Amino acid sequence: MSLIVTGSIGIDTIHTPTGQAPDVLGGSAIYFAAAASFHGPVRLVGAVGDDFPAELEAPFNHFNIDLEGLEKRAGSKTFRWTGKYLDNMNDRETLSVDLNVLAEDSPPVPTSYTDSQYVFLANSHPGAQMGLRAQFPSAKLVVADTMDLWIDTAQDLLKDLLKQIDGLVLNDSEAHLLTGETNIVKAGEDVLAMGPKFVVIKKGEHGAFLLHKDGAVALPAYPAREVVDPTGAGDTFGGGFMGHLASTGDLSLDNLKRAMAAGTVVASYNIEKFSLDRLLEIGPADLQAREAQYANMLKVR
Amino acid sequence: MSLIVTGSIGIDTIHTPTGQAPDVLGGSAIYFAAAASFHGPVRLVGAVGDDFPAELEAPFNHFNIDLEGLEKRAGSKTFRWTGKYLDNMNDRETLSVDLNVLAEDSPPVPTSYTDSQYVFLANSHPGAQMGLRAQFPSAKLVVADTMDLWIDTAQDLLKDLLKQIDGLVLNDSEAHLLTGETNIVKAGEDVLAMGPKFVVIKKGEHGAFLLHKDGAVALPAYPAREVVDPTGAGDTFGGGFMGHLASTGDLSLDNLKRAMAAGTVVASYNIEKFSLDRLLEIGPADLQAREAQYANMLKVR
Repeated sequence: MSLIVTGSIGIDTIHTPTGQAPDVLGGSAIYFAAAASFHGPVRLVGAVGDDFPAELEAPFNHFNIDLEGLEKRAGSKTFRWTGKYLDNMNDRETLSVDLNVLAEDSPPVPTSYTDSQYVFLANSHPGAQMGLRAQFPSAKLVVADTMDLWIDTAQDLLKDLLKQIDGLVLNDSEAHLLTGETNIVKAGEDVLAMGPKFVVIKKGEHGAFLLHKDGAVALPAYPAREVVDPTGAGDTFGGGFMGHLASTGDLSLDNLKRAMAAGTVVASYNIEKFSLDRLLEIGPADLQAREAQYANMLKVR
Repeated sequence: MSLIVTGSIGIDTIHTPTGQAPDVLGGSAIYFAAAASFHGPVRLVGAVGDDFPAELEAPFNHFNIDLEGLEKRAGSKTFRWTGKYLDNMNDRETLSVDLNVLAEDSPPVPTSYTDSQYVFLANSHPGAQMGLRAQFPSAKLVVADTMDLWIDTAQDLLKDLLKQIDGLVLNDSEAHLLTGETNIVKAGEDVLAMGPKFVVIKKGEHGAFLLHKDGAVALPAYPAREVVDPTGAGDTFGGGFMGHLASTGDLSLDNLKRAMAAGTVVASYNIEKFSLDRLLEIGPADLQAREAQYANMLKVR
């Protein structure tokens, strides 16, 4: 498969009600890439600064990630984020954010990547996402993530982007912000009217909703007894989703649904430990076992 | 099947962002009974006052409800509730409530009902629920609903009740209030430690969660594009759930899951119109068609 992700790589400091993890590996692209890599090789385009610690590079090599597109920019500093989860483990506060290299020019896309067929534009400025999108002329599937910040500050550009992509992934509060609709089906319809062929609305512990011209799918989250660190849940969902699609090459509604299940399951592992620690421990067999359990849970007749 | 429900019958006035319905039929027992009656006859124990309008009695006869236990109490007034749904159609405010006959003695259980095998104690004071529970010595399955008011004001009695029943149905905020747990799996475990064999935690538009010693099940709500009136969603879920169990007689985890699906689907119809208007229009074939659609939506491999 030729799956590529463009997005952030950062150093996170995470506080939860039961613990904390200082200076750990994070960022949307690395969570996505790790999750997708269980399905095959993943190309990554992202930048870190020359302050990026060598010990945080180990996961890049553990997972099946092509690092030609990873730029270590001299004279720049790595993106840093510090966040705190509230008691319910769903709501979080950003305590500090240093964009650093993310505020500079996007890293270049290697020429060898321009034939990528499956493209995931992880959350960044929609203008930057459009610039990246244009570099993959032979893409079979382009999916983007976004966030409230761009809906508030760059909505026109975001709507331009929506005309150029196949799928949008966003969370429920963002879908409400973008469309004004509280009903998730109507919010999904409004997003489809903006251009994409499908939209996935993520609901955290309540699962995910897909709307496509051929139908609607609501799936629950995998029941998680121990949630240690929700960071990256949405990004790993996206990675499992796109990894499944890229490895199967089937864009039917039925297969989009199986892709949601793959995303749901890999995200359920990711939240069991801080940072990427849990994904570093598991392999495809663990994912398949939990996917079978999840499918069986959902067998209602 | 011998399924009985005890609970409220009332006159509701409902305000939503798009309309209102003054003086319509409501109450937990009637919503439950209507939904359950698609699976077979339902016995109902409840009381109204002598002010109860004849035109609200029609639904009692439309559905397969045994009315021997319906008391029309001379000199008393019917329970009345006025509520207003907020823009998201999930949160609601109670504008006024007149307990009336609900604040008086419980209606008597007819002798012919004491052999009931499937018993649903719809939300009322846990002391009253215990008094009712004792009148069904040969019950095969007793399930109760409760609410925040009793968790706050009669928790000791509620915990006594929990030792005498097989299942508890409550919503997620109530489960949090009862156990102090925000994680739904742990909240469920805490409820099971209080006595019942299973607990169903209702999450409104986000579906429902079941915990049983043999496993956990999370199911999504049926995606609803038009929500006109959420009143009775939880009660009709309970009715579909118990109706399925009473008509099949199978209390395995797999069948509890199918019962959740039956509850989910009948609740999804109920919210499409005010009061019981939508349930008055449909029949078992409609439920079966949507159940098949729901099961197909959840088929992820």
